[in-house]
Amino acid sequence: MKKTHYELIILGSGPAGLAAGLYAARARIDHLLIEKGATGGQILLTDWVDNYPGFPDGLSGFELAEKMEAHARRFGLNTLTANVVSMDLLQPPKRLTLEDGEQLTCNALIICSGARPQLLNIPGEAEFAGKGVSYCATCDGPFYRNMHVAVVGGGNTAVQEASHLTKFASRVTLIHRRDALRATKIIQEKAFANDKIDFIWDSQVTAIEGEKGVERILLRDRGGKETTLAVDGIFILIGVIPNNEMLPLQALKAEHGGFIPTDNETRTAIPGVFAAGDIRSKEVRQIVNAAGEGATAELAAEHYLNNLTL
Amino acid sequence: MKKTHYELIILGSGPAGLAAGLYAARARIDHLLIEKGATGGQILLTDWVDNYPGFPDGLSGFELAEKMEAHARRFGLNTLTANVVSMDLLQPPKRLTLEDGEQLTCNALIICSGARPQLLNIPGEAEFAGKGVSYCATCDGPFYRNMHVAVVGGGNTAVQEASHLTKFASRVTLIHRRDALRATKIIQEKAFANDKIDFIWDSQVTAIEGEKGVERILLRDRGGKETTLAVDGIFILIGVIPNNEMLPLQALKAEHGGFIPTDNETRTAIPGVFAAGDIRSKEVRQIVNAAGEGATAELAAEHYLNNLTL
Repeated sequence: MKKTHYELIILGSGPAGLAAGLYAARARIDHLLIEKGATGGQILLTDWVDNYPGFPDGLSGFELAEKMEAHARRFGLNTLTANVVSMDLLQPPKRLTLEDGEQLTCNALIICSGARPQLLNIPGEAEFAGKGVSYCATCDGPFYRNMHVAVVGGGNTAVQEASHLTKFASRVTLIHRRDALRATKIIQEKAFANDKIDFIWDSQVTAIEGEKGVERILLRDRGGKETTLAVDGIFILIGVIPNNEMLPLQALKAEHGGFIPTDNETRTAIPGVFAAGDIRSKEVRQIVNAAGEGATAELAAEHYLNNLTL
Repeated sequence: MKKTHYELIILGSGPAGLAAGLYAARARIDHLLIEKGATGGQILLTDWVDNYPGFPDGLSGFELAEKMEAHARRFGLNTLTANVVSMDLLQPPKRLTLEDGEQLTCNALIICSGARPQLLNIPGEAEFAGKGVSYCATCDGPFYRNMHVAVVGGGNTAVQEASHLTKFASRVTLIHRRDALRATKIIQEKAFANDKIDFIWDSQVTAIEGEKGVERILLRDRGGKETTLAVDGIFILIGVIPNNEMLPLQALKAEHGGFIPTDNETRTAIPGVFAAGDIRSKEVRQIVNAAGEGATAELAAEHYLNNLTL
């Protein structure tokens, strides 16, 4: 008979899910990690990872994902490729429904479904992702020493990161589709006072172009006038979208546009349900803190399972 | 003139401090990492690290510490070897006093001073640390497949980990100095029901012996009777002590025997002061979550500094 019940199910195979999977496999917990597509999550979209501690020379996102997966597999990580479409978490056992109608149950669940950057959805964006198009200034800023970069957005993140990027880039052009920023006053003032930053108002980026990497972007202002701006890179900082379509958001008390709040030990509002990585309601989204939260979540889940039954 | 003020000071050079240092150096924050002794913290006491995600074959604690340090140095980590004896954090700038009387100031502080296991302080304990003597069942349990291990302690951690270790070890002997456990009822009952666990009551371990690794331990009961028990390893799980001697514990609202509570973004009760790694008040103490918290703390400190001054 096909196995359909597990002590622990882990949803997602980014750094948080793989860390949780490593800990679960190594602790010999009866577990299943469900992944939607390729293993690695958003790391796979990252050309080069320079800030995961322990790799002094950096490594490609693909390579880091491979290493994390191989690590968990060495201890017997058990995975299934499937798309979870809904779940019933309020009564035991917790029940997950897959796209093909199959149901799986578990006593504890770790949600590591991640998030994705809000895209501009313009020509060239996907083509140059990781090759001049970036969604994380903390991650990729240092690659643009003495270059000219564009930043798209007008919120706290975009404006703050524009200031941050001037530590590396020789020039930062902030492009905003309105005529005023949304960022808080002090962050705005700091950017206005920085002579390495210039602003293009009331304009949208309509295409990203280049040969091997980003060389220029096309802009259109409110009047429909089109211009070209030569840049070495473009940071698109217009928001992060949680991958939460399959989650019972109300029961999990989702906040800030659908992220899952937890305590310090990754416990959500539902007993036996934990959340780690970018799906968590938090301010800092980095590979290493996702991995750390995955480990924490797995150990918190073990404690929960230990106290559940004799 | 000697520089005595920094935007950010990081206290401690374990995984949390090195991750914070990597992020600070890479973000070109004016920073100083103060370390008391050798770089690496408790990793240096760890013979083999098998659960830091991304190293499928594992690596020595020494090697991981070296890699983490080299990583941060590549981006210009700035360090000082010194012993901080006291600090004044309540008024700006925050002031740290070193053992030689020198004072350093900063606008933001990340405390990564770590913790240390409570030792038995008996012959053989230091000699065989990482060679059969362990203070972390999650980390080292899988190394004892089909072996006989002793666990020392009677609290929740010791008794729960005794049960956990039976997934690997063929036999677990729990040694407690009293005639009853302190662990909560359900954890006790689980251990009592496990026929791979036996108990030695009213006894203390007085020495650890062996050739290249642990081979036997010496026990003395309350009546003074001495016996020898052959084991392949011994887990000493009698508590964790925070390295907090230099911290203003009351202002930081220290709890649970001197650990520092923080919010999810590592902010302590004092604005501009952050805590990451084992010194934090938390349940799960692992290398990867310490590193993750270090990265979070550094980015939270950057946000704090950004909003502090124009």
